[in-house]
Amino acid sequence: MDPPATPALVIDGTTVVQNLNRMADYADSHDLDLRPHTKTHKSLQLADLQLGAGAVGLTVAKVGEAEVMSEVCQDVLVAYPAIDPARTARLAHLAKHITLRVAVDSIEGAKQIAAAANRAKTTIGILVDLDVGMGRTGLQTPGEALKLAAMVDRSPGLRLDGLLFYPGHIQCPPAEQEPALAEVSRKLSDALELWAEHGLEARVISGGSTPTAFQSHLVADLTEIRPGTYIYNDMNGVHGGFCTLEDCAATIICTVVSTAVPGQVVLDAGTKTFTSDRCGPAPDSGHGYIVEYPDAVINKLTEEHGQVDVRKCSRVPKLGERVTVIPNHVCPCINLQTAVWLRDEDGTLVELPIDARGLVI
Amino acid sequence: MDPPATPALVIDGTTVVQNLNRMADYADSHDLDLRPHTKTHKSLQLADLQLGAGAVGLTVAKVGEAEVMSEVCQDVLVAYPAIDPARTARLAHLAKHITLRVAVDSIEGAKQIAAAANRAKTTIGILVDLDVGMGRTGLQTPGEALKLAAMVDRSPGLRLDGLLFYPGHIQCPPAEQEPALAEVSRKLSDALELWAEHGLEARVISGGSTPTAFQSHLVADLTEIRPGTYIYNDMNGVHGGFCTLEDCAATIICTVVSTAVPGQVVLDAGTKTFTSDRCGPAPDSGHGYIVEYPDAVINKLTEEHGQVDVRKCSRVPKLGERVTVIPNHVCPCINLQTAVWLRDEDGTLVELPIDARGLVI
Repeated sequence: MDPPATPALVIDGTTVVQNLNRMADYADSHDLDLRPHTKTHKSLQLADLQLGAGAVGLTVAKVGEAEVMSEVCQDVLVAYPAIDPARTARLAHLAKHITLRVAVDSIEGAKQIAAAANRAKTTIGILVDLDVGMGRTGLQTPGEALKLAAMVDRSPGLRLDGLLFYPGHIQCPPAEQEPALAEVSRKLSDALELWAEHGLEARVISGGSTPTAFQSHLVADLTEIRPGTYIYNDMNGVHGGFCTLEDCAATIICTVVSTAVPGQVVLDAGTKTFTSDRCGPAPDSGHGYIVEYPDAVINKLTEEHGQVDVRKCSRVPKLGERVTVIPNHVCPCINLQTAVWLRDEDGTLVELPIDARGLVI
Repeated sequence: MDPPATPALVIDGTTVVQNLNRMADYADSHDLDLRPHTKTHKSLQLADLQLGAGAVGLTVAKVGEAEVMSEVCQDVLVAYPAIDPARTARLAHLAKHITLRVAVDSIEGAKQIAAAANRAKTTIGILVDLDVGMGRTGLQTPGEALKLAAMVDRSPGLRLDGLLFYPGHIQCPPAEQEPALAEVSRKLSDALELWAEHGLEARVISGGSTPTAFQSHLVADLTEIRPGTYIYNDMNGVHGGFCTLEDCAATIICTVVSTAVPGQVVLDAGTKTFTSDRCGPAPDSGHGYIVEYPDAVINKLTEEHGQVDVRKCSRVPKLGERVTVIPNHVCPCINLQTAVWLRDEDGTLVELPIDARGLVI
């Protein structure tokens, strides 16, 4: 069954189930809790599938995503610094109904969350965000992490649950990740040692990205992983060596709408479908991979046009022909859709709403 | 009045009116029809404002956008090759109710539109798309354009209205555009001469982007311009010399959510707010311009984080502080929002729905 119109984002259900089971099996075999990041799919139905496949809870980036996901999950981690009264008030409200944890990397942030929790007469779990090399958020030293943990531990309305980190700087193939993950282990151990000296406990140590997911057992003390992209995979994963083309569950079906310029065909999808995200491990590989024409290069995008260089193709797509594209980075592509198509085992396409798309905070 | 939560996309109504009036006055003074491209705002309310400020009709890229805009406008141009039965059927249905024109760059495309128009017992106006140097869509030679025009002219269901081009390759400052626009004029003249020799008339000659808009009088034979971005403007325009910072009507209010990494602050907006679009004329200028901190550089985006290098700032934004960012490319930023805020003259913020966001075809 073909989608009625293009560009159409199609999710292959069989591949999704394989991806979910593989990660669940890995986590299970290493005694790691699996808390998938839902930013990739933003779908209640797929969150539910993840929970059914053994996830202990869900991860989100936005408060609005936490609210949406609370419809199917009673245990949500907001892996994002919840600064701003608009965020903390809604988090505290949500914490009255579900187990809610928030990542924090500042005393000020913890104070704001505590104030909101106390106003709502509830308790919010805190994971202290430690920077292990990404350089985005997270406290820089074990000493800073201790100071924040101690403040959280004595704050009414807060519950010190543990440590959080995001190893997003590790983008090399899995077989080469060991030295970088050993460095992560050392930073975590230093922080945990200091906590222990001061009588502070980290029940949860939460890390793990999709690129590092299957090497998570190399991180000492880890209790939980939060991969997101693994549910669908994309060309970042293929070129990075984290997955194969066959593991890519999300494709974008496009139609060739122009062949007027020699050596080029134009697809009906540009940055408003693919985004402008380059492939991290292969920035010159173009804006996605055309399954039927592997020698074609999507070399330029404007908002609604994808210009494809077909000069190296032995045969060339015809005007009106549909082609299948695996995007560079699937997460922001999903975020552009109001609904996508989920392909069942028998090939039937069912509309899948992107429930948590377009939320502000 | 401040938006209740961030990231918040705020449109300044006063600046919008100035931008619309300036373009309307220019078009009027040069006897050019103004048919704004609505891909930038995707809003019925702003389309209505453009029509009130003298626009003769509207331009869209998608069939769904044409359907939405037909609520306020009886004269819509689809500046996009409408290949695919899903597109042509809906276009033909729409053409029964409003004046509809479509850009075409292939005999096959024209045939598909004719078939749909005949099935719906209606007529669709055709503009033959001529490539004047952009190399995206459009016929390459006057001979090809003639062939398509002749075929359209004798096809029941189609009405040959004229020529369309998009000078998107001209990105130099207006004062330097004259040679490139003279080249465009030559290509148009060659095509029109051939049409005239064969008794074919082009009542409409439609061109004009925001960068070239105010130099459109340099294009001989032009009857209509289709700027889109001019309603809001953005850093592409500022760095390209097409507008000033004061002409930028759309800003994104962000909150500083982390200051944990030295020399850096993190905004609560990443690629899911700003997109990954680099600034065309200044690709190393970062992912937008922070009005309050002109020396800060938004140097890295992930999905929900904007990492800002503040090492060159004499003062540094504090944790929890709100800042105002002008994006590199406003059109895809609007497309990420379900609704934005419109600031009235008195500072009041009113929610503005993005009516034509998230449509498939």
